[in-house]
Amino acid sequence: MRISSNFDGGNIEVVNAEVASDIQLTIKKDNGSDFFQWFYFRVEHPAFITQNITISGLKESAYPDAWDGYQAVASYDREEWFRVESRYDEGSLHIQHTPEHQTIYYAYFAPYSYDRHLDLLAWAQSQFQCSSMHLGETLDGRDMTALKIGFGEASESDDNTDKKVVWITARQHPGETMAEWLVEGLLERLLDADDPMSTSLLDKAVFYVVPNMNPDGSVRGHLRTNAIGINLNREWHDPQELRSPEVFYVLKEMEKTGVDLFLDIHGDEAIPYNFLAGSEGNSSYTDRLAALEKQFSDALLVITPEFQDKEGYPKEEKGTANMTVATNAMADKFDCLAFTLEMPFKDNDGLPDPAYGWSPYRSKQLGQDLLVAVHQVMNNLR
Amino acid sequence: MRISSNFDGGNIEVVNAEVASDIQLTIKKDNGSDFFQWFYFRVEHPAFITQNITISGLKESAYPDAWDGYQAVASYDREEWFRVESRYDEGSLHIQHTPEHQTIYYAYFAPYSYDRHLDLLAWAQSQFQCSSMHLGETLDGRDMTALKIGFGEASESDDNTDKKVVWITARQHPGETMAEWLVEGLLERLLDADDPMSTSLLDKAVFYVVPNMNPDGSVRGHLRTNAIGINLNREWHDPQELRSPEVFYVLKEMEKTGVDLFLDIHGDEAIPYNFLAGSEGNSSYTDRLAALEKQFSDALLVITPEFQDKEGYPKEEKGTANMTVATNAMADKFDCLAFTLEMPFKDNDGLPDPAYGWSPYRSKQLGQDLLVAVHQVMNNLR
Amino acid sequence: MRISSNFDGGNIEVVNAEVASDIQLTIKKDNGSDFFQWFYFRVEHPAFITQNITISGLKESAYPDAWDGYQAVASYDREEWFRVESRYDEGSLHIQHTPEHQTIYYAYFAPYSYDRHLDLLAWAQSQFQCSSMHLGETLDGRDMTALKIGFGEASESDDNTDKKVVWITARQHPGETMAEWLVEGLLERLLDADDPMSTSLLDKAVFYVVPNMNPDGSVRGHLRTNAIGINLNREWHDPQELRSPEVFYVLKEMEKTGVDLFLDIHGDEAIPYNFLAGSEGNSSYTDRLAALEKQFSDALLVITPEFQDKEGYPKEEKGTANMTVATNAMADKFDCLAFTLEMPFKDNDGLPDPAYGWSPYRSKQLGQDLLVAVHQVMNNLR
Amino acid sequence: MRISSNFDGGNIEVVNAEVASDIQLTIKKDNGSDFFQWFYFRVEHPAFITQNITISGLKESAYPDAWDGYQAVASYDREEWFRVESRYDEGSLHIQHTPEHQTIYYAYFAPYSYDRHLDLLAWAQSQFQCSSMHLGETLDGRDMTALKIGFGEASESDDNTDKKVVWITARQHPGETMAEWLVEGLLERLLDADDPMSTSLLDKAVFYVVPNMNPDGSVRGHLRTNAIGINLNREWHDPQELRSPEVFYVLKEMEKTGVDLFLDIHGDEAIPYNFLAGSEGNSSYTDRLAALEKQFSDALLVITPEFQDKEGYPKEEKGTANMTVATNAMADKFDCLAFTLEMPFKDNDGLPDPAYGWSPYRSKQLGQDLLVAVHQVMNNLR
Repeated sequence: MRISSNFDGGNIEVVNAEVASDIQLTIKKDNGSDFFQWFYFRVEHPAFITQNITISGLKESAYPDAWDGYQAVASYDREEWFRVESRYDEGSLHIQHTPEHQTIYYAYFAPYSYDRHLDLLAWAQSQFQCSSMHLGETLDGRDMTALKIGFGEASESDDNTDKKVVWITARQHPGETMAEWLVEGLLERLLDADDPMSTSLLDKAVFYVVPNMNPDGSVRGHLRTNAIGINLNREWHDPQELRSPEVFYVLKEMEKTGVDLFLDIHGDEAIPYNFLAGSEGNSSYTDRLAALEKQFSDALLVITPEFQDKEGYPKEEKGTANMTVATNAMADKFDCLAFTLEMPFKDNDGLPDPAYGWSPYRSKQLGQDLLVAVHQVMNNLR
Repeated sequence: MRISSNFDGGNIEVVNAEVASDIQLTIKKDNGSDFFQWFYFRVEHPAFITQNITISGLKESAYPDAWDGYQAVASYDREEWFRVESRYDEGSLHIQHTPEHQTIYYAYFAPYSYDRHLDLLAWAQSQFQCSSMHLGETLDGRDMTALKIGFGEASESDDNTDKKVVWITARQHPGETMAEWLVEGLLERLLDADDPMSTSLLDKAVFYVVPNMNPDGSVRGHLRTNAIGINLNREWHDPQELRSPEVFYVLKEMEKTGVDLFLDIHGDEAIPYNFLAGSEGNSSYTDRLAALEKQFSDALLVITPEFQDKEGYPKEEKGTANMTVATNAMADKFDCLAFTLEMPFKDNDGLPDPAYGWSPYRSKQLGQDLLVAVHQVMNNLR
Repeated sequence: MRISSNFDGGNIEVVNAEVASDIQLTIKKDNGSDFFQWFYFRVEHPAFITQNITISGLKESAYPDAWDGYQAVASYDREEWFRVESRYDEGSLHIQHTPEHQTIYYAYFAPYSYDRHLDLLAWAQSQFQCSSMHLGETLDGRDMTALKIGFGEASESDDNTDKKVVWITARQHPGETMAEWLVEGLLERLLDADDPMSTSLLDKAVFYVVPNMNPDGSVRGHLRTNAIGINLNREWHDPQELRSPEVFYVLKEMEKTGVDLFLDIHGDEAIPYNFLAGSEGNSSYTDRLAALEKQFSDALLVITPEFQDKEGYPKEEKGTANMTVATNAMADKFDCLAFTLEMPFKDNDGLPDPAYGWSPYRSKQLGQDLLVAVHQVMNNLR
Repeated sequence: MRISSNFDGGNIEVVNAEVASDIQLTIKKDNGSDFFQWFYFRVEHPAFITQNITISGLKESAYPDAWDGYQAVASYDREEWFRVESRYDEGSLHIQHTPEHQTIYYAYFAPYSYDRHLDLLAWAQSQFQCSSMHLGETLDGRDMTALKIGFGEASESDDNTDKKVVWITARQHPGETMAEWLVEGLLERLLDADDPMSTSLLDKAVFYVVPNMNPDGSVRGHLRTNAIGINLNREWHDPQELRSPEVFYVLKEMEKTGVDLFLDIHGDEAIPYNFLAGSEGNSSYTDRLAALEKQFSDALLVITPEFQDKEGYPKEEKGTANMTVATNAMADKFDCLAFTLEMPFKDNDGLPDPAYGWSPYRSKQLGQDLLVAVHQVMNNLR
């Protein structure tokens, strides 16, 4: 048997892997941090023999309560990721699966590699409505890139244009790969020149999209942090170039363009629903923002049965918001509509799919539907 | 030069076609009727020579006022249909175009052939959620077919199920090919087992779809009537098997299944917008139906910038409706939400596209978006 | 139960079709002739009930001995045509099949409709290497069209060019639909500008391709003849415009261009192999032609395991050839390499596929491979 | 301006990149070796400004004479790689290009990433005719994987089967990415269950394919060597696990299966043609092998105009072969037909394409054509 994770985003530690019937594994912590939950590895072993995999030590994982009800994903061809029988018990996840082929990959969620990330950026910027922007360098020496979509000049001299400015960031937490899948779907629609919704959106707004806020963490197989263990979504109050350059460079660009709508795309380990979290906990929250939030959320309810507004995080009391979090910090700084969009690692229990659970395909489709909600609030953003 | 229309849906009469610079044509009337407006023909002539085509006699056409602002469509490959420079003047449509290839097809709108119709039916019924229903025979001996999509038993004993019943008919007027294009898009989404909207819809409803109400007129290259010149959309009060078997058989099936929502898909020769026409002229119109109409229309406004509710037919006074028209007759008979959906032959002036105008692609997309509006009213239909 | 054949290429006569367990059918003769063998019809009936179909009267069919070992084809979606259990006995073909869907089509071989024919012509001529040529009108008023592929001027003034002239005709016998499938594959490759073989061929030759020599017979559901019952492949010695305009117009064009290689594509009802028939029976046959035939055949043996040279028609004695047959007449008239290529209606017994038998897919692939053999003899053709 | 190569296969050293009009670069040597020639980097800079790039120091490169006539490749979307104007002069390659987009990648040849490599392996082994084999670990800890295609048991007890054994290795030299592109094409055809050639091949043989002999060098952006600077194609006489584990593990498996045909796929920096190099320099070379070589080469000449047998390496005198080279060593060890297949980095001058030169597309097609030549010699291999 061969177990390996020596590839982009890989993360596993083999404790014992002599027989398929008893494979003992643990997950490596994010470098410089105690967070861990993301796993991704390959098993090579003759097909049609049941693999009993135990990943232990999970009481110390970032979200120990989230393992309950969780089913791991697996793939033979690295394209179709299906769910496999998984059971959590006393700090251990037990995966039992009988592969149909010699090679099988297991992961916490369908991975999104750096190679695919570069492909996405390259394809997008080669479309005529889109250009890429080099923002700066990560601690591991990778590029921080934003995509600008739209024609108007919505830069420094913001007053000269009436185009609205929409910023979308994804994957501050690198293990939340569904966030980049969503962005892929969103970009495919937004850059489809035949789509009337996109035509209409680009008539009114310029979009700045950061498909991956955390390339270093992504390549390293981290759950929540960058190369040196920093949780980027606690850095938005006053990001430092040497500690969280990812946030530092993006925020610098946002200050240049201004922001009328900010969407920060995430995955939630525990809650099996798609939901929005707004900025109601900010001291600076206003009725205007509350009305916009409602209009956006109501539109999304019309557009897709994948969205709901019953389950999610508890509403925060005004004035109690954590202002280091991107959504809160940006809503406050730009007095703009700002949302964290959370997708499940598990499934959408409102429309369950036992075979695939929440998936890249559904994430992409939600990204496309999200644009309709953006369209709905567009004229009221400023 | 060779001009021919001896193929499915073809319609033209050559008056004079000796030189490309002066091609004189007229349109044949629908058999047994005075209606004419649909044209469809092929020109074979060396490429890169300007063709000046005059279609005359249009003061007698079904909608003489609709030619103003109309641009004909053309295609080299029978797949991509683009607009060509057209000008209406004193009963004649002047088309001026310099083809890039020897063979070019011109038409009133992108055709939808009987072969493609059979392909659509065959593909649809081979999907597991769908079955085909032979309803009867047309006067030319073709099959009237409905597709049933969904699992519940929503037949005679309607009480045993709480599944809603949705009926969608298209192309009573055979020249309004956009209606079948819309149905193709709608079916592709409704039969996409990975689409959450479709999953959710089929959880709650059974759909009966008639992609082409008028196959004889379609093959014969008619604008508005069946094989013997009958306008099917004036036959719904009391259809006769020997005169309008198309309506007779469909209505018979509707009586078996009941109807909770009826959508009749059309194209409008004159108005350059997508719009809905309801049943407000019926004596039996109620506040319940008015509220449903508003909810449906409002949802469509959210979903797509292709739809609007400003332009369209004038609202009818209660009690003045023509009860031979499908939408009115069905709303009355089944006390159900019923709409005629009209798409433009020209363009959607709210989102104009000079190169293609209103198109098969946009019709299909509207068909997909229509399902979201159906989803929105679903729980209130009965 | 509903059985219909009122569509392009349809051919069946219902004798009795009251129950699925005993469906009695016969085949209509080609108009004006005694030939019949082609059938094509649709059955609509509840799924999962076994259909026992008997087609009787086959002792009088064109090739009564060919039914032995023949399996009919069927399709749910008009795209995938699979074989169904068939047994021939005493002049009757017994098909037994349990459809999985309400609608099923049965046919003698996968049909190729006139609509698809027009699509093929339109697509081909819209490629930059290709132009269409209107040659004349059939007896039913359809267009005879040739495609010219290649850049050189290989017309009247043939001396001015050293481009070789290749003529390919298909489907003189309209029921031999595999011939047009082969041409579709051949054209797709020949018009693929990225294919080095095609680049190389068009560097050296101009191709004239007639994808369907017999559109009238095709639409009418004939096996072997045109609209008035004429077997076109017995008309090449002296074709008459009023009797076999299809041959008359093609031959007129061939006389203009000259011919260096002639391929006439057919299907054989009886022999389960692909094979070539040459012009060895001509009095004018030479060693030069014999050598070319061998080089062509040997190349095809290298290129594809679908071809063989053991099975086929018996070789003809020199001087005994039927000079009304296209291959013989053209070889003689132009002193050129000429072949009839025969494909099976059944299967290639050298590489049997019980699920599909010989198929559109394999026909298309053979069309692509055929070009390699053409390439091999190219420099020796003249 | 931003120049980066911090991604899979990247290789460049920035000397000076302040202005687009004067970008000064050098290439890094393969780790532990003096070889260098492969480059691959990304430039981000505003579009439509001419970039003058000079890569200097090339007199010391692995093939200084090969730069003459070489055109670099570039891509905006990482999918389409086109040639850009390049000129070699006195040890420097001058690239002049005006990009149409902000981001452009330049490379020595179209790259083939490790991610794509893993995708290829995963896809292939998930096909029913194919299984993957873990052979061992590279010095950087990556997996050496072979794909076994075919059903028969062709392992140790070779006598029990009459299936021939074909081994294909590619990319011993990691910068020769066309070798893996060729294998991708070859596998796509060989695993196409509808392809008669593949059906016929797998009836007679089992294939062992190593798509990438040198994953470490590939990821590191090397030209010719593994992680520690070893040229694997000089290691076949007696490979050592600690120095060239890649060859060591593959050879071990070959010894188990035996070899009837060995193809080693390469790219040649200098010669602008596809060609074969055989084992005629071996003392053990026989007439049998000579005849097989001729049959293989002759078949390839029939199949594709991309191949020729005039240009290439000079024939070696019997007994003078370098027995550390894979082809020679394997021909000798297994007394089998063995070839090195070389493709150009530049173009095939026999069929030049100024826009793309030799390309991934053409490499893949050659891989498909190669199978026909394998088929031709199959029955004579043993």
